[in-house]
Parts: sequence; structure tokens; C-alpha cells
Amino acid sequence: MIPSPAHLPAVCRAAADAPFLVAARGGRPRRRPVWIMRQAGRYLPEYRAMRAKYSFLQLCGDADAATEVTLQPVRRFDLDAAILFTDLLVPVPKMGIDLHYDPGPVLARTVRTAADVQALRLPEPERDLPVMLATATQVRAALPPQVAVIGFVGAPFTMACYLIEGRGSKQWDATRRLLHAEPGTFDALLRRITDALEPLVTALVCAGCDAVQVFDSWASVLSAADYASRCAPHTERLLQAARRAGGIAIDYCNGAVQHIEAMARSGAEVVAVDWRRDLGWFRAQVPMQKALQGNLDPTLLFAAEARLRAAVRDVCTAAGPAAHIFNLGHGVLPDTDPAAVAIAIDEARRA
Amino acid sequence: MIPSPAHLPAVCRAAADAPFLVAARGGRPRRRPVWIMRQAGRYLPEYRAMRAKYSFLQLCGDADAATEVTLQPVRRFDLDAAILFTDLLVPVPKMGIDLHYDPGPVLARTVRTAADVQALRLPEPERDLPVMLATATQVRAALPPQVAVIGFVGAPFTMACYLIEGRGSKQWDATRRLLHAEPGTFDALLRRITDALEPLVTALVCAGCDAVQVFDSWASVLSAADYASRCAPHTERLLQAARRAGGIAIDYCNGAVQHIEAMARSGAEVVAVDWRRDLGWFRAQVPMQKALQGNLDPTLLFAAEARLRAAVRDVCTAAGPAAHIFNLGHGVLPDTDPAAVAIAIDEARRA
Repeated sequence: MIPSPAHLPAVCRAAADAPFLVAARGGRPRRRPVWIMRQAGRYLPEYRAMRAKYSFLQLCGDADAATEVTLQPVRRFDLDAAILFTDLLVPVPKMGIDLHYDPGPVLARTVRTAADVQALRLPEPERDLPVMLATATQVRAALPPQVAVIGFVGAPFTMACYLIEGRGSKQWDATRRLLHAEPGTFDALLRRITDALEPLVTALVCAGCDAVQVFDSWASVLSAADYASRCAPHTERLLQAARRAGGIAIDYCNGAVQHIEAMARSGAEVVAVDWRRDLGWFRAQVPMQKALQGNLDPTLLFAAEARLRAAVRDVCTAAGPAAHIFNLGHGVLPDTDPAAVAIAIDEARRA
Repeated sequence: MIPSPAHLPAVCRAAADAPFLVAARGGRPRRRPVWIMRQAGRYLPEYRAMRAKYSFLQLCGDADAATEVTLQPVRRFDLDAAILFTDLLVPVPKMGIDLHYDPGPVLARTVRTAADVQALRLPEPERDLPVMLATATQVRAALPPQVAVIGFVGAPFTMACYLIEGRGSKQWDATRRLLHAEPGTFDALLRRITDALEPLVTALVCAGCDAVQVFDSWASVLSAADYASRCAPHTERLLQAARRAGGIAIDYCNGAVQHIEAMARSGAEVVAVDWRRDLGWFRAQVPMQKALQGNLDPTLLFAAEARLRAAVRDVCTAAGPAAHIFNLGHGVLPDTDPAAVAIAIDEARRA
């Protein structure tokens, strides 16, 4: 049985005045909260040292190692949130499909028929994904109450992309093809993925996560209409699960420009967006009470310092002082200099 | 010396009342014009028969073969325009960088420094790209005046993507990185590419093309601000070259949602867009006198007939009866059934 958040000791939650929580709830925190998508990763020498000893999947499968890697960027930088070290696809083998990385994910088989969908198993988080939950509990216990802990899952559409295509793709043509050619199968697949992930979202919050981010990494290939009618309702179930469990729900789309109307209507407290429009434009599309998260282009971390600082200031100025969580618009790139990340964090705090 | 269009015989131009030209100039033609991006290609058995005898680059390098392949879809379907069979990257070897296809393009070296940019040669179209020009002349001569002939070039940003990365990429991170980290080099590269392509645009019109489409296939990865300030001015030079030579200029962006303000200000008669928003939305962003081209999601060609017809009707209804050229939002996919293309064309004419 999943314990309700009320059963966890108070020390195992971020404080109500933690900058991340204040901003996520639409307020003006004592300082602008910052975290960085994929902040625990290859650009950090201490992460590469861990990877010399563990494969990527071994790291995801060992709670102590995953905890250590999750905490590395919080030790190095002055961050307001830790995001669990895991991967969108970690639940996939527990749904019955093996995978390996080469270097991107390669699935043992694709899911394209009604029978394929029906065969997908529904993992029980405590039994099938105990490492992820133990990591959440350990990370929460290791961090001070001013630092929030974020868990995450893939949005049903992005998970479907990998299940349908079996590997990465530029424009996910086979996925959009299934959406149009086999609408019943596509919709059943998204429902099945959501059935698989909803208990995980709840369990993540109960295990110690203060927030859950739902990552729609590849939504940019969808039309606004297809996203709103065929994908957003499934994402919404995951966002609501986070909220029902007592966590903050963060709705991230890479492709937010065309999906912002649907995102503005979602149940998430936080709308997290990529870099394709400035936050002033996004702010005008989203209800006042929602927070924005983002949205520096990750490649700006390769710019000269003055240019990087100016770009960070532009993001913060466009967002305003309240209801903003500074972040990148997509994950930090592997060959980023950690010193550039430190500069961006420093500038976001000044802005 | 390039002959001015006025020196070409009248038979070598589309008629003023050709549906494509009427719609491109903002009018209501006798029927809705239709063409399909990548209409000459692998989904056609007659094209595959040609490819059994010629490699892709051999086809691009033989005016008779390229003419034949260009005309194939116009013979099979009732189309209002032919688009020259060639490739965005055909000018690249003439700029000094060899390439092969495996199956996507692979360049012999990348362009990332000021010296690399300086070393790029500027092709002279008549000397270096005679096949493309001869194909334009032959295709124009072979077609009735009611059918327009379209030539094309890559937009400077999309050409830069390939030159910087050397092959395809999901989000063109190295390209955006150069844009931010080495702005002088990036801007010089786009200027150099534009210098290389501008005479080709002029020569294409003079050789027989009624219109030139500038393809920004990968602009969707750019922010609105970076596109407007760093890329659109170079694209504009190519669009203006087409107009000065007496041709119709078509400005295509895959990623038009975030770039529509810049596209609306461009000198092009035709704004060509991908499928991510409906044409009603685009129509509201673009001045009345400009035509829209697009924008069926190419994967809808795999849908059941009733669904495909409904989607085509939706596109045409959203566009209205005037100033619309029906097309896909991106190229037709290689495993598309030609019968589905025929259905889409038929429905666009009824709508």
C-alpha cells in the first residue's frame, strides 16, 4: 500500500517557503528559484567519474548510486531543486519491452497494433520500480527543506513515440502516421501508457518528491489540434495524479508555442516551456495564477559570458519577479562547461 | 550573361491565368491550385524505376533524367505546378565540399570557423550548375502554360545546418551553438551561403522557373528572435532575387508557427507553412495580399479515405477560396500510397 504524504515525517518535505514551492504556487519567493533540466549528467566530471564505474542503466538501477548522482549538481551549484536521476524509459522494460542504449535508446520491439498495446504490462511501482522510489526517499532525506525534490515521467505522447518507433527520430513520422491511420490503436496506446504511469506519479510524490514534471519532449511535431484532442487529456491524468497526491505538477512541452492554449488549460501549477518564444509572450497566454518554468536555449551556455548573462537577464526580465522558475528550454548538452551553468545560475539570482 | 525573362519566348512561361499564378498573386483562380512537396520521389513506382538505373546524385546531374523525373508526377496527377527534381545540397560540392548520401547526406567536412567560411567558393550557375538550369528550361518547354514550374534553393539557415553539422540532426544543437558562441562566424556563413545562392535564384527564374521556393526545412529549432534577426534577412535576399528576376517568391518554413511575424513581413508573395497550426490561424497573422501554401500533415496520407478527405476539406475551408495553394506541410513520405495523393488532390479541387 502506498503511504499517503501525511504519513511521511515533516523533515521529508520541502518547506512551504522554499523558493521553488513559493514560485510554483504563483508567489514571489525570497530569491528566484533555479534548476537545470538534465542537471545531473555527462557535463559534470563527477558524473563522468560515476559513469566510469556504472553503465547508464546500472546507475538508474542502484538507489545509492542514483542518489549520489542526483545530489552532485546540488552540491556543486546553488540550486533550488534536485531532479531524480532516472530516465523516461526506465518503466518500459517493466511494461514488457527490453531496451538498450546505443547511444540513444533502442527498444527490443515496437508497439503498433492493438495486440501490441494489449500486451503492455502495467507496472506496480513498489514492486517493479523500487529503486526510483527509494532514490526519491533518500534524496529527500539528504536535502535541506529549502531545496525541492522533483520526480518525473514521460508524457504519454513522448512515451508513445519511443514505443511506436523503437528509437529516436527527427519528426516521429511513424508516430504521427499511427495517430492518423490507426486512431483507435493510437488512443488505446496513450491510455495504456497513462494507466502504467499514473500509479508511478502518485508513488513518486508519496516517496518524497515535492513535484512531478511530465516531459513531453517531442510534442513539437504535433499540430495544436492533435495535441489538444488526442494527447493533452492523457497528460492531464498524470498532472492530476501528482496534485491529488499532494505534489506540484509541472507540464513541460518542447513545442510549447503551438500547444500553449492546451497547456494553459491543464491542471498543472507550472507550465514549462522551450526557448522558441520569450517568456513575455508565454506569460500573455497563460493564466496569472500559473507559474512559468524556463526557458534559456541550452546552446546559449556556449556563448561568451557577457552574452550569456544578457540572455539570462532577458529571460528573467520577460518572466518578471514572481511565479518564475529559471531553467533551460531543454536539457543541458553533454559538452557544456559547468562554469557556464554557474554563471547562468548566478545571473538568474541577480536578475 | 543571364538572359532576362523578357528574352524568353512566351511559350516558356506559365499563363497569367494559370491557377498557381493567380492564387500566388492573391486572387481567386478558376480552380484551387495543388502541388505536393517532394512530389517527384520514391513513393512513385515510375521514380523507383528510374532510381534502379541512376543514383540520386546521378539523377540530379543529368538534365534529361531530371526532366523526366520532374514530369512524372505531373503526368500521373492533375497538378498545377512541377517542382524541379534536384536537392537543396546540389550546390554544396560546387562550394567546395563533397558529399554523399548514406541514406541522408554526409558532407566531407564541416564549416565551423571563419577560415572554413572564407574557403567556401561561390558557384557561377551557368558554369557550375548547368544541369539544374537546363532542367528548368526543358521542364518549362514540356509543360502547358496552365502549369507553373517551381525551382528551389535551401534557406541560408537550413544550408548552414548541414554545413555546420555535416549530416542530419534532431535539434541542430551544434548549429544553434555556433549561432550563440561565434556570432560573427555564424553571420558570415549565412552571408556567404546567400552570396552563393542569390545568382542561382536569379538564374533559375531566367532559365524557365515561374517561381522559386526558399526551403527553411529546419527553422523550427530557432527562437522567433534568433530567426527574425539572424536568419530572415538572408532569406529575404533570396526572395527578393526571385522577384527582381520576375518570378514568384515562396517563403517556406518548417516551424512557421513561431516565425510567422517575420514571414508576414518578408517580400514573398507566398507564405508556405507546416501543419502545426491550421490555416485559419496563419491567415490571421499574414497580410491579406499574401497567399498561403500548405498545410496537410504528410502522415494524414496514411489515414482512411474518409478521414483524409475530411482533413483536406478542413485545410481548404480554413484557407478560403482565394490566395491558397494546396500542399502538404512538409515533403511526402517515401512509403505513401500514390492513390492517397490522388484522393487528396481530388478533394482539394472539390473543396
